Amino acid sequence: MLGKRVGYGREVMAPHNLVLSLIGASMLWVGWFGFNAGSAVAADGRAGFAMLTTQVATAFAAFGWMFAEWLAKGKPSVLGIISGAVAGLVAITPASGYVGVTGVIVIGIAAGVVCFWSATWLKTKLLGYDDSLDAFGVHGVGGILGAFLTGIFAVKDIGGADGSVLLQAKGVLTTLVYSGVVSFVLLKIIDMVMGLRVTEEEEREGLDVTQHGEHVE
Amino acid sequence: MLGKRVGYGREVMAPHNLVLSLIGASMLWVGWFGFNAGSAVAADGRAGFAMLTTQVATAFAAFGWMFAEWLAKGKPSVLGIISGAVAGLVAITPASGYVGVTGVIVIGIAAGVVCFWSATWLKTKLLGYDDSLDAFGVHGVGGILGAFLTGIFAVKDIGGADGSVLLQAKGVLTTLVYSGVVSFVLLKIIDMVMGLRVTEEEEREGLDVTQHGEHVE
Amino acid sequence: MLGKRVGYGREVMAPHNLVLSLIGASMLWVGWFGFNAGSAVAADGRAGFAMLTTQVATAFAAFGWMFAEWLAKGKPSVLGIISGAVAGLVAITPASGYVGVTGVIVIGIAAGVVCFWSATWLKTKLLGYDDSLDAFGVHGVGGILGAFLTGIFAVKDIGGADGSVLLQAKGVLTTLVYSGVVSFVLLKIIDMVMGLRVTEEEEREGLDVTQHGEHVE
Repeated sequence: MLGKRVGYGREVMAPHNLVLSLIGASMLWVGWFGFNAGSAVAADGRAGFAMLTTQVATAFAAFGWMFAEWLAKGKPSVLGIISGAVAGLVAITPASGYVGVTGVIVIGIAAGVVCFWSATWLKTKLLGYDDSLDAFGVHGVGGILGAFLTGIFAVKDIGGADGSVLLQAKGVLTTLVYSGVVSFVLLKIIDMVMGLRVTEEEEREGLDVTQHGEHVE
Repeated sequence: MLGKRVGYGREVMAPHNLVLSLIGASMLWVGWFGFNAGSAVAADGRAGFAMLTTQVATAFAAFGWMFAEWLAKGKPSVLGIISGAVAGLVAITPASGYVGVTGVIVIGIAAGVVCFWSATWLKTKLLGYDDSLDAFGVHGVGGILGAFLTGIFAVKDIGGADGSVLLQAKGVLTTLVYSGVVSFVLLKIIDMVMGLRVTEEEEREGLDVTQHGEHVE
Repeated sequence: MLGKRVGYGREVMAPHNLVLSLIGASMLWVGWFGFNAGSAVAADGRAGFAMLTTQVATAFAAFGWMFAEWLAKGKPSVLGIISGAVAGLVAITPASGYVGVTGVIVIGIAAGVVCFWSATWLKTKLLGYDDSLDAFGVHGVGGILGAFLTGIFAVKDIGGADGSVLLQAKGVLTTLVYSGVVSFVLLKIIDMVMGLRVTEEEEREGLDVTQHGEHVE
């Protein structure tokens, strides 16, 4: 609905500062422990297990993306490794506290490899959309993947319900339809009321300066 | 006692690097959990409650400053949001573990709004002092505010003592007088022994270089 | 086996960005709590004690290096303080959970002072090796020191075994011989198969660019 960025596909649009991306991803990783382990609403074994699960799956996802990129492009990259880690955090979230060691490893590796594929091939070759933060490729695809795999790898003894793949699929589909429709309506309303996109001059100058009045070095 | 910085009020003195301020405030926020929850000296429900209280009040304070600045200046700023968060951390510290939901929300919003006012209007319009880190506007005012509001919102069932506003006021006043007098005496002694302030040339070149021998890019 | 960096000893080779070193060391410090306290594999008093021990010894080590550098060079430095903290983290790791207050303070101060000496005098004056990250001076010497002192300060009532200095010395020696021999063999094999060192032109241009394809500002 918004259209692509000016110059998208013609100009290089790498992250502005790779070291800041790395610091941000590191802080996100640590903060995510509070999210997943904290969801146990107790400082018990379940919380500890969710924390361990989060750590291991995220590490596997970082490696998964790294090796996938290594194979596909000849070189791994720091941006790829942290993208894999974020994909792993997203994918393990519904599963942490419900799946065992096998589930953790499969979800981790799958998140890294599949999200690498969705943020590169699926995005540029198949669908051709613009997504500066890879919110769909990493968070969307990673979340869908994690929700499905939770249904497959949930272990009754740990706290999951067996045979819940269909239930998970139903949840994913409902979420997609609901988010899609509601977002579409909201964006249409905003577009009519105040407009969705800045002018081309404002975009070229940068939203930090023209919209937020922030001057970051 | 030190006087204002050279050029204060005539030159723009914005933080050197906004992204570093943001990273620093984020680390401070996370570290503060150790401070407030750790004060329970146990990994129990009280510690968990202090942690939750710290998180919610700080978020409310960040929003409080953001909206106050938005109303006053037409635009919120990242610097304002992190200043509000720091004000919230300071203000909730005496209260965390003693107040309930109402107290948390009121202390959070009050910290953001009042400290915005003290770091802008009170500082420049009324008192006209120089305070490069807003140590008084944010930490001083936020701390006084939090101490008073703890007296008002402390809940007996959670662990606070009812009706302790006067006690809190006495504590605040004692702290102000003690810190004021002792700091004054110490600064006077330092001034006589080795001097309090660098020369104007050293100040213009920068204390990092002239005093600490550090060359930061 | 690798030889020194081109220009080593003739050109200034300070860290590229001191603020990033500081942020990295801060994150390392916080993450290390997970390492030492987590080694209790439980959220109990032992884990809490290991965490406290880690915090205090690291702080003492940072001060130790700071004062040693202050005495030796006339000025403390941020790089020295964070190097001391890392040395402290390394040295307290084998001891955390086994030693009492005296052990914590002695190990902390010793780590800061001894590693300052090994990263300066021992490195440049006595041995003359190149070590861009001071992996030997800080991690190697700090680890050896911590292992020995654990044997001296371990307290039976806390969980350590009395009189284990010889056992610790045996462990340190075994580790040194094993790591030394295996590393030597592995490096020789790598050198024969693909080479250990980049060309001088690649080194001058920088490994980030020539080897990793990363362009960091």
